[in-house]
Amino acid sequence: MTDPLDLRVDAERLWARLEALGEIGAVHGPHGERGNARLALTDADRDGRDLVVGWMRDLGLSITIDAIGNVVGTRAGTDPDAAAVMMGSHIDTVRTGGRFDGNLGVLAGLEVIETLEQHGVATRRPVSVAFFTDEEGARFQPDMLGSLVYVGGMALEDALDVHAADDGTRLADELTRIGYAGATPCPAAHAPHAYVELHIEQGPVLEDEGIVIGVVTGVQGISWTELKITGQSAHAGTTPMRLRRDPGYVAAEVVTGMRALANAMGGTQVATVGLVRFEPNLVNVVPASVTMTVDLRNTDEVLLRQAESVFGELCQRLAADEGVTVERRTLARFEPVEFHQEMISLVETTAQRLGHTTRRMPSGAGHDAQMLARVCPTSMVFVPSVGGLSHNIAEHTHPEHVAAGADVLLQVVLARADTV
Amino acid sequence: MTDPLDLRVDAERLWARLEALGEIGAVHGPHGERGNARLALTDADRDGRDLVVGWMRDLGLSITIDAIGNVVGTRAGTDPDAAAVMMGSHIDTVRTGGRFDGNLGVLAGLEVIETLEQHGVATRRPVSVAFFTDEEGARFQPDMLGSLVYVGGMALEDALDVHAADDGTRLADELTRIGYAGATPCPAAHAPHAYVELHIEQGPVLEDEGIVIGVVTGVQGISWTELKITGQSAHAGTTPMRLRRDPGYVAAEVVTGMRALANAMGGTQVATVGLVRFEPNLVNVVPASVTMTVDLRNTDEVLLRQAESVFGELCQRLAADEGVTVERRTLARFEPVEFHQEMISLVETTAQRLGHTTRRMPSGAGHDAQMLARVCPTSMVFVPSVGGLSHNIAEHTHPEHVAAGADVLLQVVLARADTV
Repeated sequence: MTDPLDLRVDAERLWARLEALGEIGAVHGPHGERGNARLALTDADRDGRDLVVGWMRDLGLSITIDAIGNVVGTRAGTDPDAAAVMMGSHIDTVRTGGRFDGNLGVLAGLEVIETLEQHGVATRRPVSVAFFTDEEGARFQPDMLGSLVYVGGMALEDALDVHAADDGTRLADELTRIGYAGATPCPAAHAPHAYVELHIEQGPVLEDEGIVIGVVTGVQGISWTELKITGQSAHAGTTPMRLRRDPGYVAAEVVTGMRALANAMGGTQVATVGLVRFEPNLVNVVPASVTMTVDLRNTDEVLLRQAESVFGELCQRLAADEGVTVERRTLARFEPVEFHQEMISLVETTAQRLGHTTRRMPSGAGHDAQMLARVCPTSMVFVPSVGGLSHNIAEHTHPEHVAAGADVLLQVVLARADTV
Repeated sequence: MTDPLDLRVDAERLWARLEALGEIGAVHGPHGERGNARLALTDADRDGRDLVVGWMRDLGLSITIDAIGNVVGTRAGTDPDAAAVMMGSHIDTVRTGGRFDGNLGVLAGLEVIETLEQHGVATRRPVSVAFFTDEEGARFQPDMLGSLVYVGGMALEDALDVHAADDGTRLADELTRIGYAGATPCPAAHAPHAYVELHIEQGPVLEDEGIVIGVVTGVQGISWTELKITGQSAHAGTTPMRLRRDPGYVAAEVVTGMRALANAMGGTQVATVGLVRFEPNLVNVVPASVTMTVDLRNTDEVLLRQAESVFGELCQRLAADEGVTVERRTLARFEPVEFHQEMISLVETTAQRLGHTTRRMPSGAGHDAQMLARVCPTSMVFVPSVGGLSHNIAEHTHPEHVAAGADVLLQVVLARADTV
């Protein structure tokens, strides 16, 4: 029998599953890009779920679907009382998503379990792989909704009552429609023993520095705000500039103000306006209202609050100057998260033992792991993103980096699950 | 028999028609506003056209529908060889339009003709009333499309091949679908003898100065440009500010730059960004591209060209600084128009003879009259807009101002049509 320390995943089998899942909701770009559009709880998401659940079934896992649609597949351990070591991520994507974001963590988890099966390796603790509902928040906000409910951070009934940003559909209705309103209670009755998530970096740092494994120390704090700016719709030709109350102008000042804020603060501060909607959105009409979002992130809670404060003051000043109203609504707010020191060290020493270059780094993006960190020792493994691209159909990670990350995941899981 | 100089319209009958047409595609606001959404060549536009054509038929007018859907109803004169004095405007509206913009000029024209009928007043020249297709340009660009084709300023086949900005529908298909692809050749075989259009001001000047009749001397030049700004879609959390190529940021700089330009130029210069579309338009994704429009207007062609030049340089500079591409496409471009001096004087002296205060003024908005001015002596009559509002469901004009404007229209038409 293979020494568990020498076990390696079947990288080709894992790659084939990434390809197969990527065919569901596939988006093809003009330059050969192959991305994914599987927004949470759409038909495409259902098809992706069905595929992954089928693979879980093929591996003989015991499968639970909980009340918010999180799916967990578990391989039993020898100790019936031990809590599981959990892997996981998500399989929903943004509208112009890639084939690695989320998918990699779930399918690498499956591959870890298949590797254990194939080599007849028993563990004392159960080993599980999960995919959580609506991590992206592209349709239903907040993001990381499924894992947030899983750890008890949001009431189930509130989450079920969230309405889609695009068409107003209720989350519970979509969950039922696609057949993933499960019977298992949520939040989960028992916390995992530990949680580890493999993910692409989604940024340019590892590639720039030529490093293979990112040892993730925590997650940036995230602040999402929706602004509804209401002014006075009017004819574009006959309304003198001095008499305008133009919410589009205020929206533009917010966009340039947020760029200036992030540049002035430096460090890890980023600021993004990704969504803007003009009403009525016609060439020759000063808009009546503009809806927009502001996404602020920092690894330091104090600095993130400073950024929010400057943003709030800017909104108030612009509203007064232009004679418009600005309503602010928090869509999501998460403080920066620090992962478990022992788990961080375990990821680091494991990657180094496997001969990979490593770098400790915070995550610039939100991940389900930050929710699991509330209830159990948690860390993450990052692998490089080509060109730093993510949330982009050109998103790519080289096969050798996928294999390296999956092997680190396997060995970290083995170290926590106790081989017997 | 009444002396033609003493003829007055039936203001209540005119008001009732305004109310009736306003019920088609009605939009009701939260504060009792009653606006209209009858975008060109939609079902609502067809219903509005059918209503007005029915009224034309009731008046015994000879009705022509031309190949671009312009409708002209004509009351015969005693001289079979004389060209007609034409009134007219449009009945399409913007998405959040009012009940007076366009409608008033058409229904007041009908009322003028009904007044002549009722009082048995014969004219040597025929008197006609027209409504032109797609004046607003809210669905099919350029605006004033129907009257532009009518005077030979745009080839019929090009106009028929225009596609809707919202859903890509072809104009010719919509025209056929609603039953208004007519048999009368367009451009028109014969120019009218003269053209006069009653319209609401759509701006605040008359109300501010307490004046009842605006004597319109011409129309501002109009420059509409669409920008397609293409950058690099990326994850909002992991992409450092310095590595971003954000088309949303460039769009915002264009908006604030156009405000600054208009403020710096002063005079009649206005600049409006009414339409902005982010793609993919998600909270946590730096947009891949932004489509937007810029509407520039000035009464002075030299100044308008200066504004366009500054705008173009701004686009080039922003594109270079942010590393995005900016494609510019002209959607509409009309030079400032000066109306016919005798017609302007006729409107002015007629209004004063009827006891109204008057003011000469340019139009800040585009009108079908500016197209007719290419082929015949033309002027316009303005009446006040409450609060200066237009392209807004709260658009309103007081009944006494509607009556005053219609009486001026009647007397101007009588002066040009030669009573017998």
